[in-house]
Amino acid sequence: MIDYQLLNALSAVISEGGFEKASKKLFITQSAVSRRIHQLEAKLGEPVLIRTQPPSPTALGKRLLNHLQQVLQLEVALNVGALNEHTDLNTPLSVRLAANADSLATWLPEALAVLDTELTCKLRFEVICEDQSVAHKRMKDGEVMVCISSSPEPVNGGLVSPLGAIRYKAIASPEFIKQHKINDLSQLAHLPCLVYSDLDKLQHQFLNDINGSTPLFTHIYPSSEGFKQAMIAGLGYGLLPTLQLGDSLTKGELVDLFPEYYIDTPLYWHYWQTESPQLKTLRKFALQVASKRLEPINP
Amino acid sequence: MIDYQLLNALSAVISEGGFEKASKKLFITQSAVSRRIHQLEAKLGEPVLIRTQPPSPTALGKRLLNHLQQVLQLEVALNVGALNEHTDLNTPLSVRLAANADSLATWLPEALAVLDTELTCKLRFEVICEDQSVAHKRMKDGEVMVCISSSPEPVNGGLVSPLGAIRYKAIASPEFIKQHKINDLSQLAHLPCLVYSDLDKLQHQFLNDINGSTPLFTHIYPSSEGFKQAMIAGLGYGLLPTLQLGDSLTKGELVDLFPEYYIDTPLYWHYWQTESPQLKTLRKFALQVASKRLEPINP
Repeated sequence: MIDYQLLNALSAVISEGGFEKASKKLFITQSAVSRRIHQLEAKLGEPVLIRTQPPSPTALGKRLLNHLQQVLQLEVALNVGALNEHTDLNTPLSVRLAANADSLATWLPEALAVLDTELTCKLRFEVICEDQSVAHKRMKDGEVMVCISSSPEPVNGGLVSPLGAIRYKAIASPEFIKQHKINDLSQLAHLPCLVYSDLDKLQHQFLNDINGSTPLFTHIYPSSEGFKQAMIAGLGYGLLPTLQLGDSLTKGELVDLFPEYYIDTPLYWHYWQTESPQLKTLRKFALQVASKRLEPINP
Repeated sequence: MIDYQLLNALSAVISEGGFEKASKKLFITQSAVSRRIHQLEAKLGEPVLIRTQPPSPTALGKRLLNHLQQVLQLEVALNVGALNEHTDLNTPLSVRLAANADSLATWLPEALAVLDTELTCKLRFEVICEDQSVAHKRMKDGEVMVCISSSPEPVNGGLVSPLGAIRYKAIASPEFIKQHKINDLSQLAHLPCLVYSDLDKLQHQFLNDINGSTPLFTHIYPSSEGFKQAMIAGLGYGLLPTLQLGDSLTKGELVDLFPEYYIDTPLYWHYWQTESPQLKTLRKFALQVASKRLEPINP
């Protein structure tokens, strides 16, 4: 059987981003961590890590981590904390989950607030904020137990439940529209546009859809709530989830630039085939919340 | 005089996180980027880069980048875009700014919305979201033009203006209090506690202040708006900026756990000695907004 102490060392080096931090997490010395990695590589005859800063797993390392996540799932299902080292029955089970910023800011908090009484155990969430595309990669690499991604493709060893879609509308403040004398959407390409990060292509898609143009002047503003506040302050226009609009349109704080237009980003709950009953309860609860808060996914 | 083409190559490799991405940014080949870095190192007789993935600057590399930022400031002040390559007079000036997530989500959007007419030029913001401590390091390393940090210590070549303090209150939902039958704050150490990231020590400080304890069960939830929503959903208790409370207390959505208690996190605007008039206008405007929205800094 695989020596899981070795896989745990690999997992800690990747998740903590280095040998020294991994040693602190595992309560062992740094040289013990190195030894475990070397032992793993000696057994396999191949490297499992690329020694960069932070280290990254090789293709083989990724397969091992992916396998480890599935074993951990099975251990969650077993729910016998006392068998584990450094834990007792009251230790909550850790769930690493990757999701996009707009989910974190809107519907996901409610979806994670499933009651302990339904779970029969305590879950401790370690949420990682990632662009949809990167979240999927984290799942593929075996770094997380659950990911919320726009991709409907299950990863190897994984399954998928459709959650629903976040609907985005093109939004600006009335002052922004007045200041830049916008009376035709074709002017937008030259005006300040808000993007969340370099990976956020919603604004590009919007301009491309309306007249084949592209935003030429973009502010990068990596905060979901700040994005809305920046629109209200008149820093730029952009695509905002309807979930975040609240009463901003009726109050006249913000204006829908193109009422007939929207972009739906579908979201899928990715999980491992070896899903534990506790994580199944969580997934069912999340699907319920999502069905109330999100739009249906268009086929 | 220094060949700034070489420093620009160094800056691009660091900011883009690699030689290939730097080559795309600079519109030159990857081997041309390598050549420039080698040339720089040959001239200096010392490495400027550590060849990791992503690459990081050596101490000498950091000093060069820090110097480059100050030169760029002076060029902003000069405001003669036509002298630069790849730009014309209408090209907005890029301002890289690092700030903490709670600033991004609350008072900063308004502070950046200074009018073009007051600036006499267009500013394009590239905002980086970082913990206060990391933001300060980015400034020290010459990676950003402006940083918002809790440290009052100017970096080498830099100056500081106090902005004000974000006030944090200990908050939970009424359902959370009921569910966990909280009638004494000493119970909190064992109950689910929300932290933004491993660097977020506000919750630890709160428990330490009230009874010398430490949170034993923490959810990691890296979203400012999501943090508040997670409290409303009953996922845990935590410290929330008063700026984010809105009418949640009066509406009964959230409860102030300890009305006499708060933590103030002071914030400082860090800038380079060679500040351009445009960035001075921005700073003065940000100070005005901060004085309205933030608490005074206690001496």
